[in-house]
Amino acid sequence: MSMVDIINKKRLGSKLSDHEIEEAFLGYDRGEIPDYQMSALLMAICANGMCEDEVFKLTDVFIRSGDMLDLSEVEGTTVDKHSTGGVGDKTTLIVAPIVASLGVKVPKMSGRGLGHTGGTIDKLESIPGFRVDLSEQEFIQQLNTVGFSIISQTAHLAPLDKKIYALRDVTGTVESIPLIASSIMSKKIASGADKIVLDVKVGKGALLKTQEDAIEISRLMKKIGEHYGKEVDTMITYMDIPLGTSIGNALEILEVMKILSNEENNYLVALSKALAAKMVQLGLGIPIEEASRRVEDSIKTGKAYEKFMEMIESQGGNIGELRVSGYTKDIPSSKKGHIIGMDAYQFGKLSLDLGGGRKTKEDKIDPRVGIVLKKKIGDDVEVGEILCTLYTKEEGYNLEEDITNYYTFSEEKDQPLSSTNLF
Amino acid sequence: MSMVDIINKKRLGSKLSDHEIEEAFLGYDRGEIPDYQMSALLMAICANGMCEDEVFKLTDVFIRSGDMLDLSEVEGTTVDKHSTGGVGDKTTLIVAPIVASLGVKVPKMSGRGLGHTGGTIDKLESIPGFRVDLSEQEFIQQLNTVGFSIISQTAHLAPLDKKIYALRDVTGTVESIPLIASSIMSKKIASGADKIVLDVKVGKGALLKTQEDAIEISRLMKKIGEHYGKEVDTMITYMDIPLGTSIGNALEILEVMKILSNEENNYLVALSKALAAKMVQLGLGIPIEEASRRVEDSIKTGKAYEKFMEMIESQGGNIGELRVSGYTKDIPSSKKGHIIGMDAYQFGKLSLDLGGGRKTKEDKIDPRVGIVLKKKIGDDVEVGEILCTLYTKEEGYNLEEDITNYYTFSEEKDQPLSSTNLF
Repeated sequence: MSMVDIINKKRLGSKLSDHEIEEAFLGYDRGEIPDYQMSALLMAICANGMCEDEVFKLTDVFIRSGDMLDLSEVEGTTVDKHSTGGVGDKTTLIVAPIVASLGVKVPKMSGRGLGHTGGTIDKLESIPGFRVDLSEQEFIQQLNTVGFSIISQTAHLAPLDKKIYALRDVTGTVESIPLIASSIMSKKIASGADKIVLDVKVGKGALLKTQEDAIEISRLMKKIGEHYGKEVDTMITYMDIPLGTSIGNALEILEVMKILSNEENNYLVALSKALAAKMVQLGLGIPIEEASRRVEDSIKTGKAYEKFMEMIESQGGNIGELRVSGYTKDIPSSKKGHIIGMDAYQFGKLSLDLGGGRKTKEDKIDPRVGIVLKKKIGDDVEVGEILCTLYTKEEGYNLEEDITNYYTFSEEKDQPLSSTNLF
Repeated sequence: MSMVDIINKKRLGSKLSDHEIEEAFLGYDRGEIPDYQMSALLMAICANGMCEDEVFKLTDVFIRSGDMLDLSEVEGTTVDKHSTGGVGDKTTLIVAPIVASLGVKVPKMSGRGLGHTGGTIDKLESIPGFRVDLSEQEFIQQLNTVGFSIISQTAHLAPLDKKIYALRDVTGTVESIPLIASSIMSKKIASGADKIVLDVKVGKGALLKTQEDAIEISRLMKKIGEHYGKEVDTMITYMDIPLGTSIGNALEILEVMKILSNEENNYLVALSKALAAKMVQLGLGIPIEEASRRVEDSIKTGKAYEKFMEMIESQGGNIGELRVSGYTKDIPSSKKGHIIGMDAYQFGKLSLDLGGGRKTKEDKIDPRVGIVLKKKIGDDVEVGEILCTLYTKEEGYNLEEDITNYYTFSEEKDQPLSSTNLF
């Protein structure tokens, strides 16, 4: 069957056979199928979906395009974690040391940020000396000594997924449940952990906009896990406002340290504890209540904080040299009222404009810039009160718009639309 | 708005603004938008359609990408004709001389065949010396002297449509009502005729598979015509079996001559007369009954035949030198029964395999090869009776399959599924 026939078949809503999926995607990997045919097929998949068999096959093709990481030399149970991403999402940095401090191994490969969302690897690189490119042997060794390690996704894992994702990114074919599910799961399965916890984000600032889509993708990713004999658990969480109080690479490392020192208590903290508890439950095979109690202890006793520092030192980082910008600019509110919403997307874009993110893959980021939020959902604000502080590249940063507009105000003290309501 | 945003908007089913359609399609024309983004947008249009305003705008962008033919120097009313194409479709060659012999000018630009369908221009080129590339001045002059002319589509008319069509052809995005309608109508409007008759083919051998789609596209193309102040009439006709008794370039010219000599009476003849009558009705502003009577007369008196010969001579063709292959092979039936179906697509492919068509745009065709059908729908056939005769490139053509399988047989003498039932 020719590629045009395969595209037509999916355009008409039919199921593609294993052989047809291989022809199309392996052909693309070999350079025999041009971009313009693959993008048409991807759009037909966006429009008409894929059934489970097709998703299993596509995931398999992605996995087989590269190597599988062999973690058999890691002692104990390994539990991986993935979040579908968002603004100010630093949960990996909080969750991994907690879980590792409780005896569960966390082998974590992370990505870089692109567009308005940040990446864990960029955040860690704001620590001078920190190495994100450990060898496979160093990675496994650190898992056995420290208990967790966070490194940059290697090029050898599911390389075809990487190629397809780059094409999806520029052809409006990102938002497809089967394509998202097979992309995430191929990387997670190739990464070799025994068990996987997935944080599925939903809301304005996330890829998935509705609760229904989040439920559907969770179900599908669990099925893919089952297909490979991997236990997968998911948590659907809200991504509409920025997570926590900082956006920006070095600023977020500082925030993580505060949280692990038990100095914060907000939605991000609650979310991180819940995710950590799921991973501990899965990793140790204990009830969720017991797992939650141990997670609390790990933070209160300072064990999680110690584990974080141990990991940074083991990967060459010098936390004493972490710097944020000395140029700050307070943003006063131009309105009075009760905050009932904050636009995560706008804050992500602002951080990008400040120099904290990449518009293209080649851009260099400035780790010292960012935003610290001073007011949160539910707060009452007077005109002139400081909403947030910008950390800028140089003095006198010129703002083109009124950041007050990123907030939604209400005159009445309604029950605020709080993230924790949905969580 | 970026191209990715435009693609996403259409993927989500929203209406594109005039400005967005210009950005996408003019950007593609300028080479600023890559093929892989355009093919994703085309697939999103296949999936989610376009409203009338979008189709008007797209048609406009196609027209403005090239020149408009100025037919103001042609005396009398000009009526153009278009068929959505099929196997053995030689209606233009029959209809145009009839209509021209009755005083209506027919300025006709035609295309070449690709894949399993033939093209009028290829058929005419089987006549030695025939020129398909008249200059605009020669074209207009012949319209004023002979009354009709058939030339190859110039590169200056709607060139962007040509580019987009080539991309659709290889990306499974051909079958879309708004895309087909804007493609056809942009060429017809740029061709400059006063009025247009459209033959919309429906069935297994056609682009449009269902009666509903044919009705919808007819309605849409009339609306586009109205938008440009052009009177448009349509006829929905059946394309499931090959039209007429010959497939192949020189063979079809011979068949046209027989029909214009009033020696044939079948579905193709009836269809051609009906189309001709519509064009005469539109061109002269007379009732359809009167137009039909004049069409019959034109054939019976030999005027249409004379007009055909006049056109060929005027364009340099030497009909005396037309040749079909001397190598023939009769195909006996391997089954006994009553013919209730013939697969137009299979016959088109067979003609292609014999050398009468192009698999790629660069292929050279052999005008002398083809197929002459000896049995038609409704005929009773015994085992060993001749179903059709192949005209082949060389002696001893090796057939890989039993052509009997292109026919559907019934043991009972049901009411046959005749084309004329739907016509």
